[in-house]
Amino acid sequence: MKALLIIAHGSRRKSANDEIENVANQVSQTQSNGYDIVIHAFLEFAEPDIANGINQCVESGATEVTVVPYFLAAGSHVVRDIPTELSSCRKNHPELTINLSQHFGVINSIAKSIVECAQMKTG
Amino acid sequence: MKALLIIAHGSRRKSANDEIENVANQVSQTQSNGYDIVIHAFLEFAEPDIANGINQCVESGATEVTVVPYFLAAGSHVVRDIPTELSSCRKNHPELTINLSQHFGVINSIAKSIVECAQMKTG
Repeated sequence: MKALLIIAHGSRRKSANDEIENVANQVSQTQSNGYDIVIHAFLEFAEPDIANGINQCVESGATEVTVVPYFLAAGSHVVRDIPTELSSCRKNHPELTINLSQHFGVINSIAKSIVECAQMKTG
Repeated sequence: MKALLIIAHGSRRKSANDEIENVANQVSQTQSNGYDIVIHAFLEFAEPDIANGINQCVESGATEVTVVPYFLAAGSHVVRDIPTELSSCRKNHPELTINLSQHFGVINSIAKSIVECAQMKTG
């Protein structure tokens, strides 16, 4: 059973964290996404944290988790903090396969998506 | 003359900031992107900062700048910090039209892009 765990930075603003939950729900509803469950977690400022996100995957019956760092650039959170957390999770769940994908900013459609975003006016 | 200003968070890691420059270059090379110039700037930790990014737009001959907050969720940086910086920029450049787009995380293709990202393995 395959799980997708989306790890976002997290914010002190609840509405920003709600956005991440909403995005995870959108992914969950994407047909043929390839995952039985989609969970989100936060590095800082919000719950569930990464360890609890992994726990949720396991409790849902996942045997394999693909972790997506939902970050636009590979700063310290992507290069150091998330791998460190996952290393700890692997020790706690030796039976679980944890795959780490590249961070979100490397998707091929990024430039096209920025042009799309620029057309979405505020207010 | 129209400019696109991509505002990223900025990192202490130079390679993360280089990613943003690379993304801005990709947008610049995207055909029919609708902008004469594409500039990037950082909220924290790196140069150019937002004021200097706007200055670069003006020095390049821009009369209208569309600002894209290159952030995945509308935390304090999107809701408070960027608008505050832009308010100051508007005072310094009263002749310049500054449009603020929604933040990057609201693009329609976000869920599909996360699934794409999950397939991009590390290592």
